[in-house]
Formats: sequence, structure tokens, C-alpha cells
Amino acid sequence: NTPFDPTDHPHRRYNPLTGQYVLVSPHRAKRPWSGQDEKPPEETLPAYESSCFLCPGNTRISGDVNPAYGGTFVFDNDFAALMTDSPNPEESDNPLFKIEGARGLSRVICFSPDHSKTLPELSLKAIRGVIETWNDQIESLGKDYLWVQAFENKGEAMGCSQPHPHGQIWANSFLPNEIAKKDELLKTHFERHGKNLLAEYVESEQKERTRIVVETTHWLAVVPFWAAWPFETMLLPKVPAKRLNDLGEEQREDLALALKKLTSRYDNLFQCPFPYSMGWHYAPFFKDDSDIEHWQLHALFYPPLLRSATVRKFMVGYEMLAESQRDITPEQAAERLRALSDIHYKSRE
Amino acid sequence: NTPFDPTDHPHRRYNPLTGQYVLVSPHRAKRPWSGQDEKPPEETLPAYESSCFLCPGNTRISGDVNPAYGGTFVFDNDFAALMTDSPNPEESDNPLFKIEGARGLSRVICFSPDHSKTLPELSLKAIRGVIETWNDQIESLGKDYLWVQAFENKGEAMGCSQPHPHGQIWANSFLPNEIAKKDELLKTHFERHGKNLLAEYVESEQKERTRIVVETTHWLAVVPFWAAWPFETMLLPKVPAKRLNDLGEEQREDLALALKKLTSRYDNLFQCPFPYSMGWHYAPFFKDDSDIEHWQLHALFYPPLLRSATVRKFMVGYEMLAESQRDITPEQAAERLRALSDIHYKSRE
Ligand SMILES: O=P(O)(O)O[C@H]1O[C@H](CO)[C@@H](O)[C@H](O)[C@H]1O
Ligand SMILES: O=P(O)(O)O[C@H]1O[C@H](CO)[C@@H](O)[C@H](O)[C@H]1O
Repeated sequence: NTPFDPTDHPHRRYNPLTGQYVLVSPHRAKRPWSGQDEKPPEETLPAYESSCFLCPGNTRISGDVNPAYGGTFVFDNDFAALMTDSPNPEESDNPLFKIEGARGLSRVICFSPDHSKTLPELSLKAIRGVIETWNDQIESLGKDYLWVQAFENKGEAMGCSQPHPHGQIWANSFLPNEIAKKDELLKTHFERHGKNLLAEYVESEQKERTRIVVETTHWLAVVPFWAAWPFETMLLPKVPAKRLNDLGEEQREDLALALKKLTSRYDNLFQCPFPYSMGWHYAPFFKDDSDIEHWQLHALFYPPLLRSATVRKFMVGYEMLAESQRDITPEQAAERLRALSDIHYKSRE
Repeated sequence: NTPFDPTDHPHRRYNPLTGQYVLVSPHRAKRPWSGQDEKPPEETLPAYESSCFLCPGNTRISGDVNPAYGGTFVFDNDFAALMTDSPNPEESDNPLFKIEGARGLSRVICFSPDHSKTLPELSLKAIRGVIETWNDQIESLGKDYLWVQAFENKGEAMGCSQPHPHGQIWANSFLPNEIAKKDELLKTHFERHGKNLLAEYVESEQKERTRIVVETTHWLAVVPFWAAWPFETMLLPKVPAKRLNDLGEEQREDLALALKKLTSRYDNLFQCPFPYSMGWHYAPFFKDDSDIEHWQLHALFYPPLLRSATVRKFMVGYEMLAESQRDITPEQAAERLRALSDIHYKSRE
């Protein structure tokens, strides 16, 4: 009988945050690729681009003119997916046609006036500014909305339609699927074990040490045991924090460092601006704030690249219809990211 | 008070097959696009390509030589994601590191010897051959495996690495996420209402008629009320059928016609080979076949294109972290597909 070897034998791993499995097929990394190549991103962008809607002083489609901002700059999305005051539909009498109203708003956060600099290329001070902006937006919108999703789509491969470094904020009158499910699973775990699942998880990863990518004084970035995307990571504080707002001065400073290190490793992997979608999950703004003991703040990074700057993983047929599938193991992915420098390749040139 | 208008007001719709909502933002279709363009597929492929691994008579990477096949041709995937005999991992004593064994196999189905012809361009007889092959594979693998996923990734945008028209079969010793969830939801509905959810759904759509794309004697293709992808469709038989195998001669003939009409409309939409991932869902091969009353066979089509042959919908940041989002309503998508001819644009040239 061959003994089980996770780097050789297909297996499934369970994600306790989504209740979903991922199929891991490590032996499959050897197959040749003759499919689509991603367009490698333009390497040298100018610091200012006159046709860019996000650069300081430029006019947007709406006709509004951006101020000559120096740090971050937030404005209402000119093509928001939500409206603050849309009416509710009438309930259908057919239970198969369940429909409900949805209100919210959507904002854009320019990370920096510099058109050419992505997150890892910003100074720690500038990244710290992004963190404060995330927190301010989440806290102020959280007064009116149940959920505020802060996220960044980076790179054309992730549907980003503007190269100027920016993120988005979508505020929702409802709890979106992913948050509702996570809330339920975290809560059930807390009720059953009397412990915070994510706090336990941080401890377990610090013990195992096989999936750690970045560790700073207060933060830990790991390729989760159940990662679906090849180089997916999760960034967690080591101390309890329900939301960004709970973080102290030191933890915020250190978060800027952790973000810079993590995203620099990403860019260093294939020596390119590494595309991803990232965002924050944290305790929703329930009316009654008491029932959030089971929550712990964390950021999620979902990067699509698999083999090189131009070859990505496709989550398609089998994945859409049946189950997420990955080739290299999370431990192998973490090892590759760990082996790289955490100084951005461009700043070493 | 403005009355609710589904083509103007953001809202959420519930998918009773996944338990997930989709955010519908119809007013958003107006935003400009300056992001990634898909590479338009090569329009004129030769009927035979000497470098193709799937063409008749050619040698594959494994060294095996394809026969001079005339209809469909099935072979074991040279880079399968699963193995028939991989061992089980030991259970972890940490409940956060839940891992389990997975066995299976993976096959490729060449749809036709002709390198250049996709599904809608095949004759009804040839499509009928594909249907028989799906059924034969599912039935024979169903003797050994709990789940057999038949699917097709079409087009480079859907990670298809071989232009030769083909689908895949992945057999699994386990029930993958999507099937497990669907089984549970269909079962709960059946127990609660004493009715088959999908049979009821077909009836409801035949009554409403706003989301129908193709209707033949025995089949109905609709953009589901809860569709996430812009032109997503679901293809269902009008009579009870747990699996392809339950279909009579007439229903199979008619399925070939429905498939040809549906995929022709897809290609006609942007006058291009329309990329998609499609596949079949049906009653799993439980040991005890008695508990599958709640199932009804159906095919799902997930096509990524949104605005043109080169502009797709990205399911990224907000969608990955929070909830699927769509711009045009399912009714608008159905109307656009319905307005097209069901004769393929190339055969009209
Ligand atoms: O097997 P293929 O066609 O080479 O690969 C494609 O389909 C598979 C099944 O959906 C996916 O896992 C791969 O990411 C995709 O590129
Ligand atoms: O708002 P953007 O950047 O134009 O659009 C991008 O992000 C959105 C939120 O994830 C998605 O809905 C879009 O499909 C994507 O292209």
C-alpha cells in the first residue's frame, strides 16, 4: 500500500469558512499549456496620464474634476451597481421567483496620485493612508449599511478597467452571500467550541509553519490550508480584532508593512504587477453589535496566475459545475512565495 | 414613490438550486469599458490540423495514436486531475485541517473528427452521437463512481487549451460541492412541497414566457430567473427524467435539435464562436437509487461574454468576496437571444 503523499495524491480539503471543499491535484502541474495567454501588463506607466479618469486634476466622465489630491482620494462611482433609494419589488406569489430590494452605494478609492505605482510600490506612509481610508469609509458607511465591502481588482486579468491604482467600496443594505455564509459558519463554530475559529486558525498555522508567507510582529499571511486559487492568501492579525477600527496604532503601522511585503512577494514571483482581487471581511454592522464575538478581521487575496505572468488558472467547467480544483498544493505555493525576497523587484533595479 | 421597475432598479434574486442570491444592477449596463479585450477566436480553422492532439490519426503527448474515428472519440485524459487508486490521507487531529481522499478519472470526448466544427455546426446526427456518448460514459462510470461530471469548456476565454471541439468527463468517488448542495436543496423542497422543484420551474417558465430562449417539443431553454452570467441558460426536458438514460428515442432526437438551436443563437449573438462552460446535472449514483425522486436532469450553460465578442463579464472583487452581480436582467438577455435566428450564421453565408 502506497502511503498518502499530499504532493502526489489527489485529495479534498475542507474550507470551514465557506463550507466548501477544494479538489487538490498536485500531480497535474506537469501538463502542458496551449491555451490562452494573458496580455502582460504594460511595464512602464507614466506618473501622470492626461486621459486617466483617476489622475489628480483630470475630468471624469460625469464632468466632475478630481482635486489635486496628494494621498488617497475617494469619490462616488459614476456607474454604481447600487442606488441609495431604489424601491422594493413586490413579493412574487411563486416561491421560485424570490426577489428582494437592494440599496447601497459604490465608491472608488484612488490609492495615490501617482498613476504608475501599485500597492507594493507605495511608501509605508502611503499604504498607511490607504488603510485609514478603508477604515474611515467602512466605519462611516457602516452607520447606514449592514455590509461595506472594501476590495481591489488589480490587473486586466481581474477585470480592472483602469490602470490607475485604486480600490472600491460597495455598501449594501443586505448581507451578501459570502458574508452571510461565513457569519453562520463562524457563529456555529463559536457556539460549539466556545472559541473563535480564526483565532484558533492563526495559532494552528503558527505552529505548523508550512503555509506562512509573511509574518510581521502583529500580522500573519498564509496560503490557507483550503486555498482554491494557486497563490491565494489570507492576511490576519494575531490579536483579536472584529474590524479594522479595533486595531491600535502599532497594528496599523505593522499592517502597512505586512501588505507591502505580501504584495512585493507577489510581484516578485513572476516579475510582474501580480493581478488579484483582494478585500476585507470583518464583523457586519448588525443593528445589535453584541453578537459578533465569533468574528475576526481578515483580508483575502485571490490571484489568478498559475505558471507565469501570462498563464493563469481557469475556474471553469468542472470548477463551475462541480468543485474548485487546484494543481500545486497550498504548502508548495507558500514555499515558493516564501523563497522570494520581500523587497519589490523594481526597487532593486 | 417610484414604483419598482426590474429593468431600472437594483435588486436581488434567489437561486433555489444553490441557495445563493445574485445582485441585479440593470441600470449599470451603460458604463463605458476600457478594460481587457478577449482575443477574438480564429475564425477559419482547417478541418484537419496535423499538430492537433485530438485530430484522427495524430499522436498524443502520451505517445498514443488516435484512431481514424468518424463520430465521437473518447480517451483517458493524459493529465487527469484524479487517479483511480490514490490512497486516503490520515485524519488530522485538528478539525480546521479537514482532508479526505478522492478518487476518479478523467476522459476527453472529441465531438467530431472535424477540427473546425463546434457543436452548433455539427449535423443533428453528429450531435445525437455526442448525446449518446455522454450517456454511455455517465452510465458506465456511474457503476463505479458516485458522480460523473460531463462538461465542455469552449473557447480560450473559458480556459480551453485545445481548439478541436471536445468535452470532458470527470468521474468522482465523492459528491462535489455543487452537486451536494443541489441535492440537499432539491430534496428539502420535495419533502416540504411534495413536488419536484425543477418540474415546477419548467411549468412556471412556460407560463411566464419571458425568459424562454428555445422551445422544442420536449425541451425548454431559459435564462434562469436567478442567472448570474449575462447570457446563462438552463436546458430542461419537459417530462420527468432523472438522468440522460431516462430519455426516450424521441426526446434524444429532440435534444440534439434543442442543443443546435441554443448554441446557434449563442454564436449568432456576437457572430462568433460563443465561449462557455456547459455541463449536465442529474441524479447522482447513490448506492441506493430510491432516493432521487427530487432530481430532474438539466444542462447548464455559463457563457462569459457581455457586450461583444471581445468584452466579457468579470466575476471578480465584489463577486468573489461578496455576491455575484449582473448588469442586464435575465429577461433582457432572453429577449436578445430570442430575437436572433436559430440558424447558425456561418451556414447562412
Ligand atoms: O483540462 P483542460 O481543458 O486542459 O483545462 C481546463 O478545464 C479544467 C476543468 O474545468 C480546469 O481545471 C482547467 O483550469 C482549465 O484550463
Ligand atoms: O467597477 P469596475 O472596476 O469597472 O468593474 C469590475 O469590478 C466589478 C466589481 O467586482 C465587477 O462587477 C466588474 O465585472 C469588473 O469589471
